[in-house]
Amino acid sequence: MRELEISTERRTQLVDVTADVSAALEDARGSAALVYVPHTTAAVTINEHIDPELLTDFENALETMVDGGWSWRHADADGPNGPSHVRASLIGPQVLVPLREGALALGTYQGIFFCEFDGPRRRKLYVTALA
Amino acid sequence: MRELEISTERRTQLVDVTADVSAALEDARGSAALVYVPHTTAAVTINEHIDPELLTDFENALETMVDGGWSWRHADADGPNGPSHVRASLIGPQVLVPLREGALALGTYQGIFFCEFDGPRRRKLYVTALA
Amino acid sequence: MRELEISTERRTQLVDVTADVSAALEDARGSAALVYVPHTTAAVTINEHIDPELLTDFENALETMVDGGWSWRHADADGPNGPSHVRASLIGPQVLVPLREGALALGTYQGIFFCEFDGPRRRKLYVTALA
Repeated sequence: MRELEISTERRTQLVDVTADVSAALEDARGSAALVYVPHTTAAVTINEHIDPELLTDFENALETMVDGGWSWRHADADGPNGPSHVRASLIGPQVLVPLREGALALGTYQGIFFCEFDGPRRRKLYVTALA
Repeated sequence: MRELEISTERRTQLVDVTADVSAALEDARGSAALVYVPHTTAAVTINEHIDPELLTDFENALETMVDGGWSWRHADADGPNGPSHVRASLIGPQVLVPLREGALALGTYQGIFFCEFDGPRRRKLYVTALA
Repeated sequence: MRELEISTERRTQLVDVTADVSAALEDARGSAALVYVPHTTAAVTINEHIDPELLTDFENALETMVDGGWSWRHADADGPNGPSHVRASLIGPQVLVPLREGALALGTYQGIFFCEFDGPRRRKLYVTALA
């Protein structure tokens, strides 16, 4: 298992980590790569890596779908952030991508995105090859 | 890794692919099967395979939850489809099902569904057994 | 593959199963643990295990996001429960957690939660170590 470090700059932010994940898998052997987020207000997804406008759409949609204006009870040390936790679980804590000859078998338009829902923060991402 | 081909007929459509995934795993050995979607406006999920009405409920719910009427920026070559991308990430690009004596250890009512969110299109699905 | 049994008490309920999953992995070898739900109105997620108020926030948010008041068609033998099925697919049927020296490599605040969306019921959870 390798650990990557990521710095985020905004409350809600998608960050393209495809190149970092690929680099962490150099010389990897196995049939699939697990990309895992060890946090509770962040997530990881796979989506189109071409158009930066799409990331803005994603960020807005997640904030609209899980509305900060609903009645929320939970607060962390840093303040109330219930919506951040729910957004994280909707997207999910991991993706698993098949490996083909040691490389990520991503589709043509696919990239891997770290999803920050309670930034800015310093975050980790675990990358593991499975047999 | 084996590749399946799927043709979809509607914008938003769940397609039961359980039999195709099972066939792709014939003679497979290992502890789990990864079913992976190499697209950015489609997904895969597991749900009940009995009642076709439930698929209509799913299709309607995803279109309601991520509303095409919100303000969206992204457009593909084919036109604006931001909601399709977000619906895909909500459901997710893969499922991982345990194998029991080489067969999918699905629950009694479970089937595997390809989720089209920007059809009609021709699509691929990757199936891989993990050790 | 090991099977856990879980009893739920409410319609929508998150249950912390971290200790049970860890116990099921005793003496496990491998690089990741698959936790799989063989049901169609339940799911599994990873989130913060500290504050019980957060679980209430989660339960309320899922019931708000997928609204029982929308038009639904599907009914099981027990009555109409389309929203339960959709909530299950939004959270997803499995999580996959890296193993480090045989133990779950969870983040500091992470726990594993069984998500009941059509309780009360008796449920199963499958736990498998992958190589």
